[in-house]
Parts: sequence; structure tokens; C-alpha cells
Amino acid sequence: MPAALDFYFDFSSPYGFIGSEKIEALAARHGRKVAWHPVLLGVVFKQTGSVPLTQVPLKGDYSKRDFARSARFHGVTAFLMPTVFPISTQAPARIVVWLQRTKPEMAAGVLHALYRAFFVDDIDISNPDRASAIAGQCAGDAAAARAAIDDPAIKDALRLENDKAIAAGVFGSPFVIVDGEPFWGVDRFEQVERWLATGGW
Amino acid sequence: MPAALDFYFDFSSPYGFIGSEKIEALAARHGRKVAWHPVLLGVVFKQTGSVPLTQVPLKGDYSKRDFARSARFHGVTAFLMPTVFPISTQAPARIVVWLQRTKPEMAAGVLHALYRAFFVDDIDISNPDRASAIAGQCAGDAAAARAAIDDPAIKDALRLENDKAIAAGVFGSPFVIVDGEPFWGVDRFEQVERWLATGGW
Repeated sequence: MPAALDFYFDFSSPYGFIGSEKIEALAARHGRKVAWHPVLLGVVFKQTGSVPLTQVPLKGDYSKRDFARSARFHGVTAFLMPTVFPISTQAPARIVVWLQRTKPEMAAGVLHALYRAFFVDDIDISNPDRASAIAGQCAGDAAAARAAIDDPAIKDALRLENDKAIAAGVFGSPFVIVDGEPFWGVDRFEQVERWLATGGW
Repeated sequence: MPAALDFYFDFSSPYGFIGSEKIEALAARHGRKVAWHPVLLGVVFKQTGSVPLTQVPLKGDYSKRDFARSARFHGVTAFLMPTVFPISTQAPARIVVWLQRTKPEMAAGVLHALYRAFFVDDIDISNPDRASAIAGQCAGDAAAARAAIDDPAIKDALRLENDKAIAAGVFGSPFVIVDGEPFWGVDRFEQVERWLATGGW
């Protein structure tokens, strides 16, 4: 079995959302699975000196237009720009990290539900109660999800995952690593696809 | 005759170079011409607070890898990262602006020669003598090109072009505007192509 694709994403990233809707089918076309890695880009941005795209003069207006256009281009037709944006993503990221450690078979489903809640249904998933309610609908235990968000062990686990992502060179979302080769952006998925098909060029 | 595609680029931009090698064929497939717009991103970056990609922690190393990989992906196989990078691009940009006003039929050929000199042959085209020598090889008059670089009227003309680009929302390279729709990056060329084919989605 070839190695899984490492897919790094921030729950506040529109391009990450688009990528999350595409990556499993892409991986499956090449006999691969996806290893999901929620990251907190705020921490990464401190190192790169970046700010959220939408807050940059000139780039901000373009970006909002490009998010929606790129979503439609990639067939993700339900995309809507959230009212509150960007958001802190500790709550949903910790839920995923918790599930990966306790009910790994549930993690991807909950992750998609959280991402869609934010970018389709305009639910502010930075709110721990809302995020854990969504996890509860999919994985059956909202109270446990809510407790996980405040669990020091889960906080530490996410921090460690984030440090590992930064050490692996991750600085944006989505970020895919294929057999050691890094690809930043849903606009590199065509390259990811060719890399999987050919082993590089 | 449908309107030309507006193609904005900075001579120091690797993705701009890749785009410059692809845009004419892309436009021609849809019965379009290309209107070339050299811009000085340094001026734009002051407004957006951006710095050259290669100078950003984490992103810098990735970018150098992505420049070369993307060039090969797009079939631009002669790409080499220049020794001196990034560079100031007043000299080549002024030569293009000057040709567009005096020998417009020569402008695209000289532009390609300048871009290839930098990204294929590692010639520092920020140097006015080198840039005008290349223009002379293609357009026959190096001395006139050299004089144009210092001509206050050409300096003003480029400044005006740059202001117009910023007013049109341009903040990166390459940047393509198709019938009013803006696309940033050679990684949006697939979208440009579909936009031309379908009129939008």
C-alpha cells in the first residue's frame, strides 16, 4: 500500500475547504488514502509575517471573488463566504485531533461536517458549543467533544501537530505532501495529480 | 474582433515569465490577442505590504522549488533561477513601454528576449546596458533603447502605466484581465481558458 497523502488545512481557509472536498477522490484515483492534518495558520503566520488574504489591500477584494469563482470552477457549488471571517480554529481542530485519537473512523466525516457548517451553512465553528454540537450529530457525543476542546492533553496534542507541520515546511492551506514533495494550494492539485500518476517530472 | 487579454507582468517574476511563454497560444485558441503591460511590483508591494516570495520564511524555499517545478509542468523547460534575484525592472519595462510607442510590432519579441535573457541565460537585465543590448539584437537599435531608459518621457509613461495597473486592481504577476474579469497567477490559466471558452461560470 503506498503512503497516504498528507493534507494540511486550517478550518478558516476557503481554499482548504475546496481542497477538502476534492482530495479524497483525487487520492483514490491513485490508490491512496488521505491523512488529515488540521493546523492553526495563525501560529504559522507569525513565522512567515503573513496576514489573512482578505485583509490585504487590493488582494482582499480579489481573493473574495476568487474563493467563490474557484469553488465553482472545482465543482464545489455550495460554497458561501461566511459572515464572520476569518475565525480562530482551535475548537474544530481540537475535535478532529481528539477523534483521531479516540474514534479515528469518525474523524474524516466530522471534519467534513465542520468545514461545511462553516463554508456552506455559515455557522461560526470557532464557537466551542456549536462545533461540538456538529461533532455530536455525526459522531454521537457532543458532550465528549465539548470536553475535548478544553482538555489540556488535546490542546497539547494539537500544539505538537502544529509544530510538526511547521517543521515539515507547511505555511499555508491547503498544503499537500506526496511522498515528500510539497504542494501549496488547491491550484496545485493538477500538479499533485500528475505527480501521483508519474512520480514526478 | 473580441478584446485583447490584458497581461500584466513584472520582469523579475518567475511565474510571470512562465505565463509570458503560454499566454499568446492560450489567447490565440480563443481568437484573442495579448496586450502586454510591464509593471513594477515594488511599487505595488508598498501598497499591499508584500515582500518578494523568496524572502519570506518557509515560503521562500518552497517557492524556489515551485518555480522550477511549475515551469516544467507548463512545458517551459528552459527555466533557470537567476543568480541575482529579485531585480529592479525599470530598465526592461521602460524598453517595452518605449517600443510600444515607437515600434509596436517589435515590442512582444523584445519582451520575450528580455524575459528569456533573465530566466534562461541568467543575464541581469536590471543593468541598462545589458537590457538595451538585448533590445538592440532584436529591434536593431541598442543605442536608442539605452537612451529610452533615461528618457523622462518614458519614465513618466511607465509610471502612468503602473498607476493604471494598480487602479485596475493589479497586485501580482502574472495578472490577466479578460473582459473585466481578473485572474492572478499562472495557476489561474486553466480558469482563464475556461472563462474564454464559456464566458464565465
